[in-house]
Amino acid sequence: MANPTAAMLVIGDEILSGRTRDANMHHLAGKLSEVGIDLKEVRVVSDEADAIIAAVQALAKTYAHVFTSGGIGPTHDDITAECIAAAFDTPIDIRADARALLQAHYDRQSMELNAARLRMARIPDGARLIDNPVSIAPGFQLENVYVMAGVPSVFQAMVASVLPTLTGGAPLISTSTRIERGEGDIAGPLADLVAAHSNVSFGSYPYIKNGVYGANIVVRGADSQAVSDATQALIQAFSDAVR
Amino acid sequence: MANPTAAMLVIGDEILSGRTRDANMHHLAGKLSEVGIDLKEVRVVSDEADAIIAAVQALAKTYAHVFTSGGIGPTHDDITAECIAAAFDTPIDIRADARALLQAHYDRQSMELNAARLRMARIPDGARLIDNPVSIAPGFQLENVYVMAGVPSVFQAMVASVLPTLTGGAPLISTSTRIERGEGDIAGPLADLVAAHSNVSFGSYPYIKNGVYGANIVVRGADSQAVSDATQALIQAFSDAVR
Repeated sequence: MANPTAAMLVIGDEILSGRTRDANMHHLAGKLSEVGIDLKEVRVVSDEADAIIAAVQALAKTYAHVFTSGGIGPTHDDITAECIAAAFDTPIDIRADARALLQAHYDRQSMELNAARLRMARIPDGARLIDNPVSIAPGFQLENVYVMAGVPSVFQAMVASVLPTLTGGAPLISTSTRIERGEGDIAGPLADLVAAHSNVSFGSYPYIKNGVYGANIVVRGADSQAVSDATQALIQAFSDAVR
Repeated sequence: MANPTAAMLVIGDEILSGRTRDANMHHLAGKLSEVGIDLKEVRVVSDEADAIIAAVQALAKTYAHVFTSGGIGPTHDDITAECIAAAFDTPIDIRADARALLQAHYDRQSMELNAARLRMARIPDGARLIDNPVSIAPGFQLENVYVMAGVPSVFQAMVASVLPTLTGGAPLISTSTRIERGEGDIAGPLADLVAAHSNVSFGSYPYIKNGVYGANIVVRGADSQAVSDATQALIQAFSDAVR
């Protein structure tokens, strides 16, 4: 049976302007691989309502799960929750359970739950809260969309809250073999291996290091014996160039 | 006049599986900002023809420029050139000028221009070659799509070849001010600044460092005086928390 599919939507002008380098995509990709959910697509869009709504609708329709990061804080540019509600044509308002979490948190710190912070209690009707052990303000799940924070430590904590609730497929086993030879020399023998080992996939990821050409050949599959056999065959085929 | 828009398409299973952390998005985003081209969207898709073709068609229709990275090498999983040709319903074959570049390169190195390497001379009809000073095998431009390599050093060299040929808009000036105060306290005064300085944009990018909450507030605009004025006002509004 095929693994469940997923997409990620990164919301944030700061990534598109080149100011910040996204870290959440790489984190989520690794975690989903571990539990056997296939990340098939990532989109990065700016903090514009039309762009967010269109992307959420397209991805939620196509993939089993959609994970978003960014735009759920208290400032004027945090519009993700409203956009998710709009994408599903669902009402959104301050919700008692989210408000209670924030109230208790700020009471403990003798800080005021002001109007801005209260925006973080705006949750679409019918959504389930996602626990935020780092800074309390919750994420939420609406339909098949998981809405999480952009700050990496909070994003990672929310992913850790969500993943155990999802049913994955067979985690993919993979090996990576470094072959110090130009891809043009690797390609022919590799094509033969691809044909001979149809129950695994081969990826070739070239590099240039200190002027030397090579490629990391990744063998990936759900059947560990098949991955092992294919990797053995690969190593034999390029025995003089494996590093 | 609004700046020209752009999108990027990253092609590669290795990013989606979490094995490799993409570097090209961050590089391109920074370079486009410098020349006044607004990167509005990034998509990452797997090495599957249907996904690549659909993404290219959607992005090429929506944005002035589309930049792709990945999948133009000699191995079996390098299918980008064929997909771009298919997306524009254009024939593709080995082209004499691209072949001549490769032939001269491999002759110099006393290496064989074998069948696999020759695949890198497959160029859609009517495309313009993009210079690759690092490893010779060219990228190409077809319509408004710029097809470039995934290896970061080659991608960066190709971006450097392409950018001078594009007409940008007004480069955006930006400042970043670090305010050591929770976003919930920043949000109110910041909303007033947003209202008072309509010719710039404000972005709030929260962080948590050693348990201390803060945010980097980015002021961005094409008019340097307006950016400077807004930044001054920002610093005054949070004078006791600017770090």
